[in-house]
Amino acid sequence: MFESAELGHKVTKQVYARQEPKLREALLNAQFDLAQAKKFPVLILIGGVDGAGKGETVNLLNEWMDPRHIQTRAFGDPSDEEAERPRMWRFWRELPPKGKIGIMFGSWYTAPIVSRVLGQSDDAGLKGSLEEIVRLEKMLCDEGVLLLKFWFHLSKKQQKKRMRELEKDPLTRWRVTKFDWDRFKMYDVFREVSERALRETSNANAPWTVIEGADPRYRSLTAGKLLLDAMKKRLEKSNYKERRVQVPPLPEMDNLGLLRKLDMTQKITKEKYDTQLEKWQGRLNLLSRDRKYFKKHSLVLLFEGSDAAGKGGAIRRITGAVDARHFQVVPVAAPTEEERAQPYLWRFWRHAPRRGRITIFDRSWYGRVLVERVEGFCGVADWMRAYSEINDFEEQMVRGGAIVCKFWLQITAEEQLKRFTLRQKTSFKRFKITEEDWRNRKKWNEYEQAVCDMIDRTSTEIAPWTVVEAEDKYFTRVKILKTIVERMERNL
Amino acid sequence: MFESAELGHKVTKQVYARQEPKLREALLNAQFDLAQAKKFPVLILIGGVDGAGKGETVNLLNEWMDPRHIQTRAFGDPSDEEAERPRMWRFWRELPPKGKIGIMFGSWYTAPIVSRVLGQSDDAGLKGSLEEIVRLEKMLCDEGVLLLKFWFHLSKKQQKKRMRELEKDPLTRWRVTKFDWDRFKMYDVFREVSERALRETSNANAPWTVIEGADPRYRSLTAGKLLLDAMKKRLEKSNYKERRVQVPPLPEMDNLGLLRKLDMTQKITKEKYDTQLEKWQGRLNLLSRDRKYFKKHSLVLLFEGSDAAGKGGAIRRITGAVDARHFQVVPVAAPTEEERAQPYLWRFWRHAPRRGRITIFDRSWYGRVLVERVEGFCGVADWMRAYSEINDFEEQMVRGGAIVCKFWLQITAEEQLKRFTLRQKTSFKRFKITEEDWRNRKKWNEYEQAVCDMIDRTSTEIAPWTVVEAEDKYFTRVKILKTIVERMERNL
Repeated sequence: MFESAELGHKVTKQVYARQEPKLREALLNAQFDLAQAKKFPVLILIGGVDGAGKGETVNLLNEWMDPRHIQTRAFGDPSDEEAERPRMWRFWRELPPKGKIGIMFGSWYTAPIVSRVLGQSDDAGLKGSLEEIVRLEKMLCDEGVLLLKFWFHLSKKQQKKRMRELEKDPLTRWRVTKFDWDRFKMYDVFREVSERALRETSNANAPWTVIEGADPRYRSLTAGKLLLDAMKKRLEKSNYKERRVQVPPLPEMDNLGLLRKLDMTQKITKEKYDTQLEKWQGRLNLLSRDRKYFKKHSLVLLFEGSDAAGKGGAIRRITGAVDARHFQVVPVAAPTEEERAQPYLWRFWRHAPRRGRITIFDRSWYGRVLVERVEGFCGVADWMRAYSEINDFEEQMVRGGAIVCKFWLQITAEEQLKRFTLRQKTSFKRFKITEEDWRNRKKWNEYEQAVCDMIDRTSTEIAPWTVVEAEDKYFTRVKILKTIVERMERNL
Repeated sequence: MFESAELGHKVTKQVYARQEPKLREALLNAQFDLAQAKKFPVLILIGGVDGAGKGETVNLLNEWMDPRHIQTRAFGDPSDEEAERPRMWRFWRELPPKGKIGIMFGSWYTAPIVSRVLGQSDDAGLKGSLEEIVRLEKMLCDEGVLLLKFWFHLSKKQQKKRMRELEKDPLTRWRVTKFDWDRFKMYDVFREVSERALRETSNANAPWTVIEGADPRYRSLTAGKLLLDAMKKRLEKSNYKERRVQVPPLPEMDNLGLLRKLDMTQKITKEKYDTQLEKWQGRLNLLSRDRKYFKKHSLVLLFEGSDAAGKGGAIRRITGAVDARHFQVVPVAAPTEEERAQPYLWRFWRHAPRRGRITIFDRSWYGRVLVERVEGFCGVADWMRAYSEINDFEEQMVRGGAIVCKFWLQITAEEQLKRFTLRQKTSFKRFKITEEDWRNRKKWNEYEQAVCDMIDRTSTEIAPWTVVEAEDKYFTRVKILKTIVERMERNL
């Protein structure tokens, strides 16, 4: 992968002087068009060999363009707020919104490569991390992010020469430390691992571009032109999304049985409810207070269900059992302006709990494959790919220490009608029933199909769905509490 | 202050059973109205003696109302991201938006009280902190926040009894540690300091309510009713803001001299510019890279000025001198939806830099007393109070380690016209001139008055304004760089 970047590419002063002003103006214009259109963000990942001009190039891009619309982020050691959340959280929080250019130094590639070089992970570990990255980047691209990946390269000889030069100059001596020379000794391993990382993560969506870093003029013009070219191409596509190949819609699948074969007659008496509620709430309370155990974990609970299926009541039986200081309920409504400027999972990532905390989602990222699918708010290709994107998201949370419990609350159409009517009569429940609820009711069958597909495709061993027969509220609440407690205890 | 809360208040089971369901329903209704209107947030601060039922009451409020619209936050030790920013940053990031109820445990009162009790600060220190709090709370109230402050109290005898009870019960034994008994020994000092804190921060805007904590039924009903009453009263005022007493508009002051007496003919040659630019950029670069020194500080730069005064160009000469990984430019445009749901300073607080970082604001919080004043986007009372609110904000940043440099770039009306015309001709500057710029030009005198008032009222010794005669771009850029470098060096 590095062959072409060891040829000794050079650009003369004259050529540079002629090309730079034009490039600069064109970049500024493209940046302006990007900011005006606000249709997609640009994300540039910067990697490569020390001394190959990564920092210099980024500074130059900031100088050439308007730094007010560029956000440059360097990722060193994670802060404690970052360390206590899934690994990818820190990158999600720094994604550029539509219309902006984000530059990431030391992106999600750093940790996998460095830990393989130092022997802290094996080939299989590296492979797993790279696969995760491929899926993440595919998702970002599908969400419209223009992703550019620049790798600045120096041959071993060039790097040594560069470090010597920096050391000689009193003004740059500080940049070369013992740490850097120690790293230099690992040049060959680093090269080998990097090459593999680049190869396995280069694809049509987001190929790596290796840029020879020895000559500042060459590398600057190259990076600038690559960026300009990519921005112009994308800006010319007036509607990127609609031009993409559409995945054909799913054929009708006859697995409606999943919801229809539920035993909806299950119920428990008030007496049994009272004792069971106390029992499971007590156990949940103890578990959530167990500092030693819960410090290593977080709890993510999510509730989906037919309208009026009793999500709110169930959530209150959970929050009633734990200290208000440790949970947060996130009611999911229409996304805000800042959320709409990001990939759809961004607004859920931002609420990922720290260890020792509980986040309860009242409706969730599954809106993508439920309401957005049924109402046609996103294209078929978008909700089709969402299944695997969601599985990836949940896997990352679980690997970050989260216990993820997902509940689908099912009621019959008759029970729903009964509850709607009742709610309209009860003063302090009046807000729970809206015009939209009546509209949704008419699409009962389409929702049923969407629910079955969702459960089939996203119920995994690490984050399984629990379908709750919610015709009886007592039964519902106890089943949910019991499920959570048992999942937590199994993780002990 | 605590006398009435040591009388042994009690509520019988019968009374509680009769009142609780009604209170609950009324609270739920008020909460619904709050969420629908989205006109103001409710913020409840919880303080008091250990064992007086703080946690229990908060859990109960979450149980009575819909926990999906309550955000409860407990403030323990600051995270490293919080510790590296001004002290109030962690509270700002957790303010509830309009329509929601926020509950803060261990709010901004904890640190001042505890450090006085432990003798880490003296009376003057406590007084300073309390004054700061009074101003903060006044500002929040002026911004429309419904602020409630509940102090849960126990007499010394009651607290001892309560701790003994908790210790006896195997289920609650974990709640009483040696730390708690050590704290109990300081009851008298704690009481004295708290009393002072409550007295000095109780005022018409946000009085403290002391609630006797011994009887759970009494304290629960009391807190619930206080909350309900406050919410209902505020909800009844259909338009809270406009009903407030208006401060009379400022009389015309004849201090226009401030801008008019500037020597606008100052300029430097291209040759001098080149050497000066290199000199000051070099020094800025060195300072920003000085880890030992800059680790303790952050740098906040803000730019205001007439349209086309050259803010963007000046900013680029600064960003050109420092590493892109260490600065962030915040271009201030119209607030987003999430920002509009918060007090106006919130959107600037969120960008407060960590130590070792630079934040450059292209336009700033001074919009409040410039464009918002001139265009009438906010009332006279609002921009009048903004001067002291802004001074408080900047003081807090400076005390948190920030060096704050504020620049007003002034050009003459003739020069502005020249630049407008030129910009419309230059392709890559075309985006810099809009219809709005032409409109603003017509209000030249009103802006001039607003600028003079602003400088008079907000140029402080810790965050002084630098007025820059910006007729000549070379002169402008050098003056700005020099000012920043000298301010930084003085702080060494």
